[in-house]
Parts: sequence; structure tokens; C-alpha cells
Amino acid sequence: MTNLSLTFESAFEKTKKEVDRILLTAPLLIKNYVSHLTLSHGKFVRARAVLACAMQEDGSIHNDAVTFATAIEILHLATLVHDDIMDDAELRRGKETLQKKFGKRKAVICGDYLLAMAIKELKSVEDINKYTEFDISKYIEQICMGELRQSENNRNFNLSVLTYLKIINGKTAALFDASYFAGAVVSEKDKSKLHLYRKLGKYTGLIFQMTDDCIDYENDEQTALKSVQSDFEQGVITLPVIYSFNKNPDLRKQAENQTLTTTNLINQVKEIGGTIYTHQIAKRYYDKAINILNKMNLSSQKAEILKGLLDKSYYGLKK
Amino acid sequence: MTNLSLTFESAFEKTKKEVDRILLTAPLLIKNYVSHLTLSHGKFVRARAVLACAMQEDGSIHNDAVTFATAIEILHLATLVHDDIMDDAELRRGKETLQKKFGKRKAVICGDYLLAMAIKELKSVEDINKYTEFDISKYIEQICMGELRQSENNRNFNLSVLTYLKIINGKTAALFDASYFAGAVVSEKDKSKLHLYRKLGKYTGLIFQMTDDCIDYENDEQTALKSVQSDFEQGVITLPVIYSFNKNPDLRKQAENQTLTTTNLINQVKEIGGTIYTHQIAKRYYDKAINILNKMNLSSQKAEILKGLLDKSYYGLKK
Repeated sequence: MTNLSLTFESAFEKTKKEVDRILLTAPLLIKNYVSHLTLSHGKFVRARAVLACAMQEDGSIHNDAVTFATAIEILHLATLVHDDIMDDAELRRGKETLQKKFGKRKAVICGDYLLAMAIKELKSVEDINKYTEFDISKYIEQICMGELRQSENNRNFNLSVLTYLKIINGKTAALFDASYFAGAVVSEKDKSKLHLYRKLGKYTGLIFQMTDDCIDYENDEQTALKSVQSDFEQGVITLPVIYSFNKNPDLRKQAENQTLTTTNLINQVKEIGGTIYTHQIAKRYYDKAINILNKMNLSSQKAEILKGLLDKSYYGLKK
Repeated sequence: MTNLSLTFESAFEKTKKEVDRILLTAPLLIKNYVSHLTLSHGKFVRARAVLACAMQEDGSIHNDAVTFATAIEILHLATLVHDDIMDDAELRRGKETLQKKFGKRKAVICGDYLLAMAIKELKSVEDINKYTEFDISKYIEQICMGELRQSENNRNFNLSVLTYLKIINGKTAALFDASYFAGAVVSEKDKSKLHLYRKLGKYTGLIFQMTDDCIDYENDEQTALKSVQSDFEQGVITLPVIYSFNKNPDLRKQAENQTLTTTNLINQVKEIGGTIYTHQIAKRYYDKAINILNKMNLSSQKAEILKGLLDKSYYGLKK
């Protein structure tokens, strides 16, 4: 029986090691592909969220939270691998994507393998019956819906703000919701508070994606470290563009007639204020999230970490 | 609390309905794609296996077996959808594949969605703690390994029998193993017998795949109802071909030099006896499986259904 209590930092280190262990101990055939992913680890934002939400009053974190955090990071990697197939993306976090390096067919299977590993990891929670509220399959369903909706709306220059929100809710906010929820079921005895964690997670995720969607129209390629192809070139329409199209319908016409270059669009979005508007919308969610945080009556350490994650989502990971 | 006991036929009908319910009640966006799959239902061999293995001494079947059978059929559909992406297949069970009809990108997501539905269905088993031995994620892992191994060995004209067996063990026998196992955990009080069910399942799966691999070299396209492209044209090397290449190395040379046509290969495999050899190997597993069945001391009804599944695998589904 393991019933380890960990500090936030030790839990975080343990999670990173566990993720690496899963990637590096995969069967040789799979390892050839997935070990590649250890090179392009993200900042483990979702793992941090799980662990922060799992923190007890005294600052300790139950070992089950490490298992949940690991499972969610592996699931996140799985979605990235399949996501890159959907987007035909060549770069991710500055490194070549799995689909670009090894081909779509192998990427499909590697994503499936990672999905299986995430579920296996979840199953390894000692007494999973303690956590029946948390059902990962519902989140995978939501993520699929988001991805499919994005794919359906590829090059839809009439995309509405509502549909945009639905898309990013599925493709990004759902896994944030899952992370906050998974952490909360470990720490929270008062089950009526679970929905507050979920809402906080969802808002943090929405803000995270909106900030990310601004990058294409604010930074140059090297700073973005994301892809040689911008969202627009991939047909992905985001809020800065929706706003600009609404303010200047002529721009939409140009897009429809395929006379709109990316450089031209970037300049126009800047001039019209598409990213400023997007940050304003993100700010509304930020304020809602702060309200929720204040309502939750958390220990100062826990509140600080969760506020930190919110700030990182709002100001961008590099700040 | 549901604790329904069902007959084999009623459990089977309930499983089919439950599979259809999952496909038809998917969110609209997903339904547009997956409802297409209800058109090309297979024969539910795996569901039949789950239910047969779950049969009690008195012929009754616990409702949990329906949940397991449904989950396994949905998982099977998920693997088919991703499999068709891997193989670039255009037809499946005589119908256009999802990847051909809607594109690879959407097929990736639909497969993921079905995978999530399978896991969700499993989670709906009332007291999942009763069945801790059964871990679906290990099987998904094995299936991925099989698929990846097949992909790695595409157009490998020196494929060994051993590697061929490893491939079909992962891509087909693993899910049969899972089906027999899932059924057995529902019915079997004597846990020491579980490995017999699993072995029976694995052998039935191996035989099933070997028989299937013979179809390309025995039947014309319309009878096979499988694909306009044969295994060989897709670069998939199967036992009838391995045997023929070993008997006539000149044939392998022709394949390597790309001077071997499919028609020529089919004629040569027939002449050399590649399918006869494959059926002989399948017969060895058949005999082993019969031995296991005899050892298991099952009720006559249960033994009969399991023998029937074995016979169908050995003689082909259409006999």
C-alpha cells in the first residue's frame, strides 16, 4: 500500500519522471517513435494543474494525483500526435512532428498507443472506486468533438464566435477541465465544490487557447516556435481573424477569393485590433476565474499556484 | 440495481442494439461519420465469444457480459477505422471505408471517438471492481504493436513466419483473447481457469486471421467482399505468400524487382500450395484449441457455441 504524501515540487518531479518512464519503456517498436516526444516536452501545465488542485490544506499531495497527472499528460501527448495528423503540422514546440517525421500511418498508431497508456495509468490508481466521479472517456469524447468541429470549419471564413468558442472548448478547455477535476477528486472532501474546480479549469483552458491564437498575429515564427505554417495557412480561423473579418468584410471577401496573403492578414489584424479584442475576451474569462478562485477558500499556497497557472495562460507561457 | 440474467440469443440481440445505440446517438457531428458503420456491421464474432464465455452452467448470461461485448465490438470498430487509414483501404465488408469516404483526418478522430465510447461503455459496468483482472488497455497496446509491426514490415518480402505470427497475434488474436477473457471474468468463479479461456480465444483469433489471409488467394474479389486492393498490392505479406516465397525463391526475387503481378502471384501460390500450407498451420492451432475446449468441462450448450466459433474461424465465415 502506497499512501505517500508529497510536496508540490516532489510530486511534479515524480510526474515528469513517470511520463518519461512510459515513453522510454514502450516496446522497442513503439519507442522508436514515441521516445521522440520526450525531446519536445511542454511545460506540463496540465500536470501542474492536477497537482495544485490535489493539494491538501497542509500543502501535501496524495500520490494518486501523480498518477492522474501522468495519465493526463500522456493523454495530452496522444491528442497532440493525432492533432498533428489532422492539421498536417510539420513542427510542434520547435521540433518536427511525429506525423512529419514518421508518416501519418505510424502517427495514428502511436497516438492510439499513448491513449492506451493513459488509460492504463489511470487504472493503476490503487482504489479507483474512490474517484468514480471522474470519467476520462467523457473528456476524450469532448476533445474529439472539438477536433472534428475544427476540421469541419476549416477555411470557413464565416465562422461565428460561438462556434469558435465551442471548438476551443473541446480541443483545449476540456482537458484543462479534466485536469482540475482529477486533482479535485483527490483533495476535495466537499463534493459540492467540484464544479468550481471544473469551471476554473475550463476558463483557464479557454484563456490559454485564446492567448495561443494571438501568437500567430503577434510574433514572428521563431518566437512562436510552433509551426512553419500559420493557423490561417492551415485554414484554422481564430478569434483575432473572426473579429477582423467582422470589422472589415472586405477582408473576408479577399479570403474567399484567395487573394488574401498571410502577411497582409497579419498586418490587417494588427491594424483592426483583432488580437486586442481577443485579449479583451480572454480578460472577461480571467475575471470570472479570479472570482471563482476567491470563492473557493483555498490555502494561500494552493491559491497562488492556481493563480499562477491562470496568469501564465493569460499572459502567455513565456512571461 | 440491474442483475438481469439473459439467454444467449437475448443477450446477443441486446448487444447489437446497444452497439447501434452508441453509433446512432453520437453527437450529430460524429454521427454523420460513424452511423455509416452500422451499414457494414460484421458478424459480431467477438460479441458472440464474450457472451458464450460468460454463460453460466444453467445457460444464463449476466447483463455485465452485454456491456463487455458491446465495448469490445465498439473497440473493434475503432481499430477497423484506424486500420483502414493505415492500409489506405477503400472497401471494408463490401462498403466504402470511412477514411475513403470522409478522409483520413476525420477517420482519425472518429476512431478516437469510438475508442472513448468503448472505454465509457466498460466504465458503465456496475461493479467494475469485480473484474479487476480484465484490463482493456493492455489489449489496445497489443493491437497497436501488431498494427505497427505490420506497417514496419510492409513490402518485406523476407518476412519470417515468426514475425507473421507476432503480427496477427497483435492485430487479430489479441482482441479475441480479450473477448474470451472478458466473458470468462463474468462467469468463471475458478480464476485458475481464466488462462484456458484466453488461450482458446487467442488460438481462435490466429485461426480466424489465417483463414482470412487465404481468401485473397482463393476467391475472386466479389466473393471476398473485402477490398479492391489485395493484401499483396497493399504490401501486406501473409503466410500463403511467405510459404510460396520460401518454396520458390525466384518468386521473391520477382517481387523484389517489382516484376511480380498479383495475378501471377495468385496462380503461383495456388500451384505451390501456399493456402493449403496455411490451412495446415491453422489446423494445428485448431487441434490445440479443441484440446483446451475438452479440458474446460463446460456445459454442452456453452461448449457447442465456442466450438461453433472455432469452426467458423477455421472454415471461414461463409460456411
